Amino acid sequence: MNAPKPVPSRWRAVVAYDGGGFDGWQSQPGGRAVQDVIERRLAEVLGEPVRIHGSGRTDAGVHARGQVFHFDAVWRHGASKLRLALQAGLPEAILLRSLRPAAADFHARFSARGKTYRYEIFLGAADPFQTRYCWSLARPVDWAAVAAAAALLRGRHDFKAFAAEGGKERESTVRDLRRIELRRRGRRVRLEFEADGFLYKMVRSLVGTLVNVGLGKLTPAEVAALLASRRRTPQVQTAPAHGLSLHRVDY
Amino acid sequence: MNAPKPVPSRWRAVVAYDGGGFDGWQSQPGGRAVQDVIERRLAEVLGEPVRIHGSGRTDAGVHARGQVFHFDAVWRHGASKLRLALQAGLPEAILLRSLRPAAADFHARFSARGKTYRYEIFLGAADPFQTRYCWSLARPVDWAAVAAAAALLRGRHDFKAFAAEGGKERESTVRDLRRIELRRRGRRVRLEFEADGFLYKMVRSLVGTLVNVGLGKLTPAEVAALLASRRRTPQVQTAPAHGLSLHRVDY
Repeated sequence: MNAPKPVPSRWRAVVAYDGGGFDGWQSQPGGRAVQDVIERRLAEVLGEPVRIHGSGRTDAGVHARGQVFHFDAVWRHGASKLRLALQAGLPEAILLRSLRPAAADFHARFSARGKTYRYEIFLGAADPFQTRYCWSLARPVDWAAVAAAAALLRGRHDFKAFAAEGGKERESTVRDLRRIELRRRGRRVRLEFEADGFLYKMVRSLVGTLVNVGLGKLTPAEVAALLASRRRTPQVQTAPAHGLSLHRVDY
Repeated sequence: MNAPKPVPSRWRAVVAYDGGGFDGWQSQPGGRAVQDVIERRLAEVLGEPVRIHGSGRTDAGVHARGQVFHFDAVWRHGASKLRLALQAGLPEAILLRSLRPAAADFHARFSARGKTYRYEIFLGAADPFQTRYCWSLARPVDWAAVAAAAALLRGRHDFKAFAAEGGKERESTVRDLRRIELRRRGRRVRLEFEADGFLYKMVRSLVGTLVNVGLGKLTPAEVAALLASRRRTPQVQTAPAHGLSLHRVDY
């Protein structure tokens, strides 16, 4: 007689990573995506292949402080030991911040109720110690104009003008941008975006547009017109990946 | 008749680099040292091989904000254009901060009168966004004890106990450690060292020792005894490279 096969249970993990050395979040043929690295480690620890499901992809160079993923696995030694076992074989650029059992119907992507992204800007010439995590802006920026344009973007809108191709075309492009916050501290500026969800490259498109307002290339009124047009035009520029970090996913 | 061959003149450069992606400063067979990258770029711009001379080597993973080097070259278009031409072909992790003509007898290493190194510590578990530039310490550190031990190390001493093998054995191991400064700001601690010169791995050996005092593994009196012994022992541990940066060279 065979013993009954153990039933896998669902796990939920929060992970931080420095995206500078990976091909983005989502599994790639070269195996250099964050998902690939974590799946390889899971397979080593659990002795069989495991597929993980992230809250969404992040592009190459984009960082995360609070990416969330789930997976199903058989493990009888507690969450803490599983976290330590996994972390022991991960590169320093990937930190498993937490790992815990989840309800069987928890889904990192479909259960998410909101996300927060941060975009970091450094005011000054490109600096080897800033360039990995910030967009360096050497020209003067009118932050009052940026704040005025940001206020026009807040709220529930069709953000199609600020989405890049490559997203899922059939889905709605309406999102509720609950919060855009601008914080300055010396030469560092942080833009924080909170929404029920984001379109493909939406944060980087919003940042590129807001910075162009600050540089005098667009007026806040032109940003409102872009939003209303619901068409992506070359006026909407995409800010560099390396300034962006997926800060938090809310469930 | 041949035109007279132009006489090269001496140039002095200040360079910042993120050492995380290079095999240290000094030219290596693989060509992945900072010196190799800069020399390749100089050869592209000047059309002939150029050897550069740094103020000293930095190990793999060690950063620099103010490394200085000199070289001899024929260039008739001004320092500013040469700097821009060189920078245009350098990776973002290397920033030529300044470039100017130097006296014919200026030597980046032998003319140096002093150097300043900074060592960065992050108080907390290893974090993907800190690990590139800081040593992460998760255990509590007694900073008053560290300061007491640092006070004993200041001044003119034979620092042989804090030098690693690989240095030039015949040279004097006496150095004037003019300044050790400890600054805390939240979870960040910076140790700054200024001396007329440093022995091989001296700063990392001093940091390893000071942190061991802070962790209760050594007393300040034992540090004084180590210094007086003028012998390297396993009690002297070397702090990780990635927390260290060559901050400034004075002439």
